[in-house]
Amino acid sequence: MAPVPVVDRNREAAQPSLDPLFRLLQGDLDRVNTLIVERMDSPVELIPQLAGHIVSAGGKRLRPMLTLGCARLSGYRGDRHIALAAAVEFIHTATLLHDDVVDASGLRRGRDTANAVWGNKPAVLVGDFLFARSFQLMVDDGSLRILDILSRTAAIIAEGEVHQLITANDTATTETAYLEVIEAKTAALFAAASRIGAVLAERPASEEEALASFGRNLGIAYQLVDDMLDFAARPTEFGKSVGDDFRDGKITLPILIAFSRGDPEERGFWRRTLEQGEQDPGDLERAVRLLERHGALAETLARARLYAAAAAEALSVFPDGPLRRALAETAAFATARGF
Amino acid sequence: MAPVPVVDRNREAAQPSLDPLFRLLQGDLDRVNTLIVERMDSPVELIPQLAGHIVSAGGKRLRPMLTLGCARLSGYRGDRHIALAAAVEFIHTATLLHDDVVDASGLRRGRDTANAVWGNKPAVLVGDFLFARSFQLMVDDGSLRILDILSRTAAIIAEGEVHQLITANDTATTETAYLEVIEAKTAALFAAASRIGAVLAERPASEEEALASFGRNLGIAYQLVDDMLDFAARPTEFGKSVGDDFRDGKITLPILIAFSRGDPEERGFWRRTLEQGEQDPGDLERAVRLLERHGALAETLARARLYAAAAAEALSVFPDGPLRRALAETAAFATARGF
Repeated sequence: MAPVPVVDRNREAAQPSLDPLFRLLQGDLDRVNTLIVERMDSPVELIPQLAGHIVSAGGKRLRPMLTLGCARLSGYRGDRHIALAAAVEFIHTATLLHDDVVDASGLRRGRDTANAVWGNKPAVLVGDFLFARSFQLMVDDGSLRILDILSRTAAIIAEGEVHQLITANDTATTETAYLEVIEAKTAALFAAASRIGAVLAERPASEEEALASFGRNLGIAYQLVDDMLDFAARPTEFGKSVGDDFRDGKITLPILIAFSRGDPEERGFWRRTLEQGEQDPGDLERAVRLLERHGALAETLARARLYAAAAAEALSVFPDGPLRRALAETAAFATARGF
Repeated sequence: MAPVPVVDRNREAAQPSLDPLFRLLQGDLDRVNTLIVERMDSPVELIPQLAGHIVSAGGKRLRPMLTLGCARLSGYRGDRHIALAAAVEFIHTATLLHDDVVDASGLRRGRDTANAVWGNKPAVLVGDFLFARSFQLMVDDGSLRILDILSRTAAIIAEGEVHQLITANDTATTETAYLEVIEAKTAALFAAASRIGAVLAERPASEEEALASFGRNLGIAYQLVDDMLDFAARPTEFGKSVGDDFRDGKITLPILIAFSRGDPEERGFWRRTLEQGEQDPGDLERAVRLLERHGALAETLARARLYAAAAAEALSVFPDGPLRRALAETAAFATARGF
């Protein structure tokens, strides 16, 4: 008989968690999940099959939770936040499907993405379907203001993804360019998902801006930690495997820090592995050692915590209460996950 | 000195052409083209670069012309058709970019698509960007009705493309399934592009339906001829090269006809080349001979002409005049191109 796990309740309470937010929004989130399943259906069976693979793939539903939570925090009492949260998740899911598209060389890596299972083309087309469905949900909602926010965001995400492709393999990428990329590809959707909560509740511009700032800072913190975890995660606790970004030649903040602090020999290492893409066994381990030697992971985490603090601070214009505290805790969670 | 070509003006006049429509709409179309270039711009330079490759790649601008022409035919006198025609073209362009995505094996074919030049990933992301831009144009226009029509159409196109993937390589595909695919992947956008002309002019439902029927029938005729030309085009006159669909294992109407009329040995040939994908030198030529022997190309063209006639007939609820005649001529053009 397996031993009963001993749960350290004090430690649990101290660890930031998404649980309080989930508990407060469980009813709404269940409705979002039902709607997602309904709206990804199609007589073309491969569509719900493939979409289900990614929609159910352990997603935390963080972005729709932001819409739900920010709508409630803004005092919204209606139902429209359900469909809009689903629309936000569909944009995210479509982005994920398209982000996994690989060219010939990449396929060999054999990751268990939708693309690896079904090939690029169905994944791209199902992403298109979900993207179109997202707009149908918004059109049914009927707010041109929200359509404006989310269509603009969709364009910004695509721009950020292309920008990221250009900065990949280029160790001369600046921190400014890196921050522009993660603001566009990640933080913009967090910001929009949060902002529309205030739009639904018809709150003044200052509160809309506060929620957008909350989402944007949270998104940046989240992506910084994501980029750090690529070199530090324990595989079981984190969706992607360690070293994915390194193998793709993505230039992230940890690398920019270690590169700027490195000696000429180390810079040669980064250029060979990331620019020329020549990676040998042991290179990932050496990369991690260099990052640690220069404090690049700790520095990235420290920066993430500054953004997380700014996210929590942005909520201070709203009255204190369990929901505000739960949203602030998502920011703390973003910088404490995966360890 | 090269001889001056002798132009047979009588023969020219007899050939259906898009020229009359172009002449009538030239001013509007110039504005659409200017807007397209403006709205595909981005600080991320690869975006206008890659989008320009496909937007300028000899496109006939047929779909935006339908929006322009149908708006004018409906008596619309404003400016909104310009932006909506650009939105329609962006949806089409995004679809083209995503349609060319290939998996590892396909890359070897080395076609000069955007994907072959830049790789799959930028092509997918720039497609996403254009799709988002398309929605931004519609949102700026501000008609929820038109947003509804085009977001629904975008979902139908994606469904049709996935459906096509499923029917590929399956000689048991029915004509019904084939028609469903081409209605969704091609005719739906022709129908929507035409329909919104009447919506802009606030015409009654009967005229909206008439224009949608014009577009849908024209789109089906267009796609039938496209599928026929895959086996019959003179390369210089037709964008894609002969045999592309055959190599992809696409099951199109000419093949369905030849398969149903073929003997067991011939069916074995179609199964080997299309289902098992085993194609040897000379197989394309044999396929063309079989299609001709069974009259499959002539039969496909005859069907296309029925749809083209239905398209022209749908316009009869509008008063006769140069624009109506020019639109009807696009239907005749669709079944006379490429020979």
